[in-house]
Amino acid sequence: MAEGTPAVARPAKVIVGAEELKAMVAGIFAARGATAVNAGAVADALVWANLRGVDSHGVSRVTRYLELFDKGESDPNAMPTVTRPRVAIAIVDAHAAPGPVAMIRAADEAVTCAREAGIGWASIRGTVHTGAIGYYASRIADAGMAAVGVVAGVPNMAYVGAKGAAVATSPLSVAVPAGKHELVLLDMATAVMALGRIAQLKAAGKELPPGVALTADGEPTTDPALAKVPTPVGGAKGAGMSLVFEMLASGLAANPIVSSYHSGTREGRRHRQNAFLLAIDIAAFLPLAEFTATIDDTVDAIKSLPPAADTDEILMPGERGRHTARDRAASGIPLGPKVWRELTGIATALDVPVPATPKLN
Amino acid sequence: MAEGTPAVARPAKVIVGAEELKAMVAGIFAARGATAVNAGAVADALVWANLRGVDSHGVSRVTRYLELFDKGESDPNAMPTVTRPRVAIAIVDAHAAPGPVAMIRAADEAVTCAREAGIGWASIRGTVHTGAIGYYASRIADAGMAAVGVVAGVPNMAYVGAKGAAVATSPLSVAVPAGKHELVLLDMATAVMALGRIAQLKAAGKELPPGVALTADGEPTTDPALAKVPTPVGGAKGAGMSLVFEMLASGLAANPIVSSYHSGTREGRRHRQNAFLLAIDIAAFLPLAEFTATIDDTVDAIKSLPPAADTDEILMPGERGRHTARDRAASGIPLGPKVWRELTGIATALDVPVPATPKLN
Repeated sequence: MAEGTPAVARPAKVIVGAEELKAMVAGIFAARGATAVNAGAVADALVWANLRGVDSHGVSRVTRYLELFDKGESDPNAMPTVTRPRVAIAIVDAHAAPGPVAMIRAADEAVTCAREAGIGWASIRGTVHTGAIGYYASRIADAGMAAVGVVAGVPNMAYVGAKGAAVATSPLSVAVPAGKHELVLLDMATAVMALGRIAQLKAAGKELPPGVALTADGEPTTDPALAKVPTPVGGAKGAGMSLVFEMLASGLAANPIVSSYHSGTREGRRHRQNAFLLAIDIAAFLPLAEFTATIDDTVDAIKSLPPAADTDEILMPGERGRHTARDRAASGIPLGPKVWRELTGIATALDVPVPATPKLN
Repeated sequence: MAEGTPAVARPAKVIVGAEELKAMVAGIFAARGATAVNAGAVADALVWANLRGVDSHGVSRVTRYLELFDKGESDPNAMPTVTRPRVAIAIVDAHAAPGPVAMIRAADEAVTCAREAGIGWASIRGTVHTGAIGYYASRIADAGMAAVGVVAGVPNMAYVGAKGAAVATSPLSVAVPAGKHELVLLDMATAVMALGRIAQLKAAGKELPPGVALTADGEPTTDPALAKVPTPVGGAKGAGMSLVFEMLASGLAANPIVSSYHSGTREGRRHRQNAFLLAIDIAAFLPLAEFTATIDDTVDAIKSLPPAADTDEILMPGERGRHTARDRAASGIPLGPKVWRELTGIATALDVPVPATPKLN
């Protein structure tokens, strides 16, 4: 799971309240031309990732969005369009809208399809920086449904037998609502180690664990300076998942990424993503309360097993992130000084108010 | 991928033609009371696995089926029943029919749903020994659709932080039809190493690679004699996938396995499986030929990448199994002497003709 990677200690982190951070980020997007709804959607999705400790998918991406706006590769004003070729499927054309704008629309369309047909599938074509896919799966779960979500992007991960980046670290998320327990939320990259965590170790000059990255020549390495390409989890399994996720997410959206990327054209290497979201209307199968009771029993059964050595508590998918979110909602989100400097610089330049923050070491 | 695990050299393997093997296996099931169609379905699914080199899911399971029939845990005559509570979903109650009987029915129901609604989902309740899930995903692909399939079974795999078997090695299959290329077919367990391969190494007294199994006490081991529980691929990732697969496959089928198993009752530990199959009608999204051309381009792009050291050819998911199937279709399926002795013993006792076979090695 991408969540809950322990933070590397750095000096002078800044602590910002989640709501203040959201307001500032929404202010930045609004100042760049997004509607209030769209600006709020992006801010909420980014801060959700920060709350859960997935800082690599959080507000540190604001600068990247602004670059994409500047280059014309994303449009803060884009309005996704939707077609419903059949009752259970929707095709959402993002028109290069920021990921959360297109993905939230797609999640809602998938839920609408599922209410009618029992399950609903939304293919999302041509969005940018989707962010944490678990956010959208959670949104579908909020409607009392189970969800599956996948994102396809530009190659940055190895494929077994090939040198260099071949496929993307395409994440998979599965959300299953429980009753007395909280949402079971799997949210995992198809790489052994999330890119953000590798970057953290590289920045700290720490040796990587074996098996997480290759050199530019495709040789395994633990040297952060030589590590260029993350490896797929389980070798052929992670590589295979990533490849078929690209085929489903990009193929059904008629917007191939992997083949275009390797064609070597400038256009082919342009940043873009596709995705799909599947909503499953549990109540069409059995009473929702019966389903959630089964999920509760299953959670209890696993949590009650004898723990392995050095294990205090057996965790469910998503549980570590939720614990982090509870802490950070209460005491604020720690941001690195560089991210904070960039964000506040942008905000100030756009006349967006900057929240006061205490310093943490 | 579970496919293509290299066979451990053993003396006196027997070589049997695929069609002769199917006829014998179908004859055994028919003699035990299955209809000709059902007997043929089981034989075809088992021999498909043998053809592809997944011998652990092949005809070696015939004796296990007969045990399940004897114990009343499977019924060779059972006729699955189907409900269609909404247009895109079907619930197939297997009534303890042999896996292939229920799963083939479910694959066809998923295709029917998808033709109407764009996508179709079949939940399969209470089947036994599903076999290679890729077989059913391939069947959906034969209808010009993409497919996703998952099986949930009785716990036999570790979960991060827990001692002993906690969840199942629940496999995932994804099938994506191509144009000039052959079907892209991911078929993987959520364990690092398939149970069948661990059993082969144990039988050969060979040390296991690190990371594939735990002792009964939950300690990592490479000693085949101490290895009791296979480990999930990618730690929390494989464990999390297996857990949410159980929740979706068993929860939506209203037939929980993991929670029942850990309740410790005899009934709870009874062999049974649930599954789901998702069919995606590609032609509802875009012209099928445009989709398959994209898949061809994607396959070509990956296969044309500079190979890593020691790599002759970059393989697609399912390609190794297909190569094995081509070889075995031409020259016969090698079976271990024990499996052959058991099968022919059963056949003879039931007056089913036994094919003549040349000896290998």
